[in-house]
Amino acid sequence: MTIRLGIVGVGKIARDQHLPAIAANPHFDLVAAASRHASVDGIASFATIEEMLAGVPDLDAVSICTPPGGRSDIVRAAIAAGKHVMIEKPPGATVSEVVALEQLAADAGVTLFATWHSREASGVDAARDWLADKQVTSVAISWREDIRVWHPGQDWILGPGGFGVFDPGINALSIVTKILPTELSVESGALHVPDGRESPIAATVQMRCGNGAPGRVDLDFLQTGPQSWDIVVETTAGTLTLRDGGKTLSIDGKGAAEGGGIDEGEYPRLYARFAELVPSAGRDVDLRPLQLVADAYLVAHRVVADPFEF
Amino acid sequence: MTIRLGIVGVGKIARDQHLPAIAANPHFDLVAAASRHASVDGIASFATIEEMLAGVPDLDAVSICTPPGGRSDIVRAAIAAGKHVMIEKPPGATVSEVVALEQLAADAGVTLFATWHSREASGVDAARDWLADKQVTSVAISWREDIRVWHPGQDWILGPGGFGVFDPGINALSIVTKILPTELSVESGALHVPDGRESPIAATVQMRCGNGAPGRVDLDFLQTGPQSWDIVVETTAGTLTLRDGGKTLSIDGKGAAEGGGIDEGEYPRLYARFAELVPSAGRDVDLRPLQLVADAYLVAHRVVADPFEF
Repeated sequence: MTIRLGIVGVGKIARDQHLPAIAANPHFDLVAAASRHASVDGIASFATIEEMLAGVPDLDAVSICTPPGGRSDIVRAAIAAGKHVMIEKPPGATVSEVVALEQLAADAGVTLFATWHSREASGVDAARDWLADKQVTSVAISWREDIRVWHPGQDWILGPGGFGVFDPGINALSIVTKILPTELSVESGALHVPDGRESPIAATVQMRCGNGAPGRVDLDFLQTGPQSWDIVVETTAGTLTLRDGGKTLSIDGKGAAEGGGIDEGEYPRLYARFAELVPSAGRDVDLRPLQLVADAYLVAHRVVADPFEF
Repeated sequence: MTIRLGIVGVGKIARDQHLPAIAANPHFDLVAAASRHASVDGIASFATIEEMLAGVPDLDAVSICTPPGGRSDIVRAAIAAGKHVMIEKPPGATVSEVVALEQLAADAGVTLFATWHSREASGVDAARDWLADKQVTSVAISWREDIRVWHPGQDWILGPGGFGVFDPGINALSIVTKILPTELSVESGALHVPDGRESPIAATVQMRCGNGAPGRVDLDFLQTGPQSWDIVVETTAGTLTLRDGGKTLSIDGKGAAEGGGIDEGEYPRLYARFAELVPSAGRDVDLRPLQLVADAYLVAHRVVADPFEF
């Protein structure tokens, strides 16, 4: 079966990751794109999803890469037209919004796949397997990147509902919620919001594991020079370290030393999973990473940080 | 069976509502209290829950009336000691924290009852029954009260994690999530936070029902004169109005005209429910109202409001 696919939102992440991954997967035939300001060479392009759905009625599925704000209407339109849906992370602007979408997809009998690309990084499954029978004593996340490099000019990310530094930080939360043998909960935190902006440019969150062990999240969007996307899990049987956004795993300092850059296998694995889900109209929606961010917003102390311009 | 009960947090809500409701219920024998600054005449009083659990080891159950911040440790102590637990609303500082507590209670084989007192108001069950087979076309919540009357001097409520105007507003959300035949999700909002405070003193939230119908929440903590705690649900079969915090129900303007004040039956019904749950170690934890608040914090625009002093 070939899945006739439309893509919505042709921005940086679509061009960098989605289009190459789709092109490399024989299960998909990319036949249409909808984007306000961009098009994809060689396929039918539209300004809105409504026009795309009307113009290419025999689409099977839609992959949605727009920012989370306003995405709910796009997903609703796709589901209402009977299309299978894959969504970039974070899956929506709020937890309750995605719960509603999942119900709509179930009622319509279509796939809803809320992707978490960092969960597909090459060290993640092995980390989960190693931790499965361990007693966790602490978790530390340090996610420090340069917003100007990774999100150039993307003002929406610091706007209301833009997630700010939690846009990359939720990748770390997607990994830890996959690999830890215990659930995480949010206890307190601090959000540093630039004067005149709405979403944090840096954040710390204090968490707790189900077994009582502490967790700490440090997020910074102003890291210049070397970037870090690191998770360290201490256990009674040794220390697990995942670096490079889940790509590089080591136990007690031993293990794969390769590093640097994004794991190019993440998006191909997401599309392979989507191709698995579509024939049975399966759903894969794990909202725990988004829940932890919502909880951090709910409980955190807010600090006014220096103004920020790209 | 008589349930030997300890109460934690002897503040305004405990004195106004919990102590009279416990005294009137023959299933409960109040034998201990823990509170930093207060005691209850005629029973053993302690400064902390740890001291209470050590001093009165044959307690069966604990009712927790402290503010949500820091409550997680109190609930954990009670569960670890094998006590059944009832919690004032909101059930915790974050959704994930309460999910963790529910798991701990399940593992320990004790009751966890996350109460929503407004759901026990006298018009709520009849509202749910009337709405059960209706098609909702809009929902409007207007919750306007005077913080100086209802929360005199309670600075924590405007602090980080204090919920601000969502402390009363979550009562409305607890009612609508009980009575509506469709789920609610948060789409956008505005939080008005007084300069120098952390939590909102007024808020508006735009919501959507599962069927697509719009919902609107208006919360104000600076309402002097007549207070309003009103929910209006429009349906294709008429308009349901719940006034007085769930006490007074009318359909198309017809129905009970009584009003004013808190329904004195709310807390007695909560303790009756707790007495039902304890013998089978049942759990009753519905986190949807708290989820909607967390989602509002996540997505809302923030507005600096005038400074506020009690």
